[in-house]
Amino acid sequence: MEPLYLEDLQVGQRFTSSAYLMEESRIKAFASEFDPQPFHLDEAAAQASVFRGLAASGWHTAAVAMRLLVSGGLPFAYGIIGAGGEIEWPKPTRPGDTLRLESEILAIVPSRSKPNQAFVTVKITTLNQNQEPVYVFTAKLLAFKRP
Amino acid sequence: MEPLYLEDLQVGQRFTSSAYLMEESRIKAFASEFDPQPFHLDEAAAQASVFRGLAASGWHTAAVAMRLLVSGGLPFAYGIIGAGGEIEWPKPTRPGDTLRLESEILAIVPSRSKPNQAFVTVKITTLNQNQEPVYVFTAKLLAFKRP
Repeated sequence: MEPLYLEDLQVGQRFTSSAYLMEESRIKAFASEFDPQPFHLDEAAAQASVFRGLAASGWHTAAVAMRLLVSGGLPFAYGIIGAGGEIEWPKPTRPGDTLRLESEILAIVPSRSKPNQAFVTVKITTLNQNQEPVYVFTAKLLAFKRP
Repeated sequence: MEPLYLEDLQVGQRFTSSAYLMEESRIKAFASEFDPQPFHLDEAAAQASVFRGLAASGWHTAAVAMRLLVSGGLPFAYGIIGAGGEIEWPKPTRPGDTLRLESEILAIVPSRSKPNQAFVTVKITTLNQNQEPVYVFTAKLLAFKRP
């Protein structure tokens, strides 16, 4: 897909991504490094927790969503540069889940100080193989005009 | 520090964390896996980007903040279980930065359906060694009463 400049973007525009398999070994490795809580590391402890079974760290799901955005899920020229946004994890991500993204541009607000830039609000929904949202990131991203 | 139950929490309560060194090799490894954009991987490309130098993926900073929360930065009984929140990256995280957290409870809202639980809003600010905020997560976390 051609890289998209600010002039190519419009409210309501939609994007999809490729898919990503959440392997149990990677879920545990990520959690060991960044989120070493029992419900991300140990099946028995996870069964006894509010998650009722092993769940990926929400930050692992967020990082995988970023990978899907960067690898074709949102082909902004100059890349995916986020200032922030709102995040929500409506359901856990489980070992063996296959994740993919559906994204939609909600707003485009020109920068006051930099006439070649705008802030673009994009609602990025990460779905599992049952089409259930597991992570929603309403992102405030930077987009740039053609040079 | 003793694990804190819902009864132990109050609005205005503050917490600090230990520190975490952002090594360049880990910044590049994280970016290779989850955020393979030139400004996270290559010094020359990063200099030419809006970051004006190598920057960690914002998701790497977020994941490290989670690690600091889990390892004593926010000693909630039953762990750090987030439903979502707002995130912001006011400045890039650079190789060699040392990050630590300052957190404050902003609100405590009892669950309507589960009398032993509440949603606790915590503003978690990740600071670098110059006391500059690099990442702010206003988190909606679950807290539980004593069993």
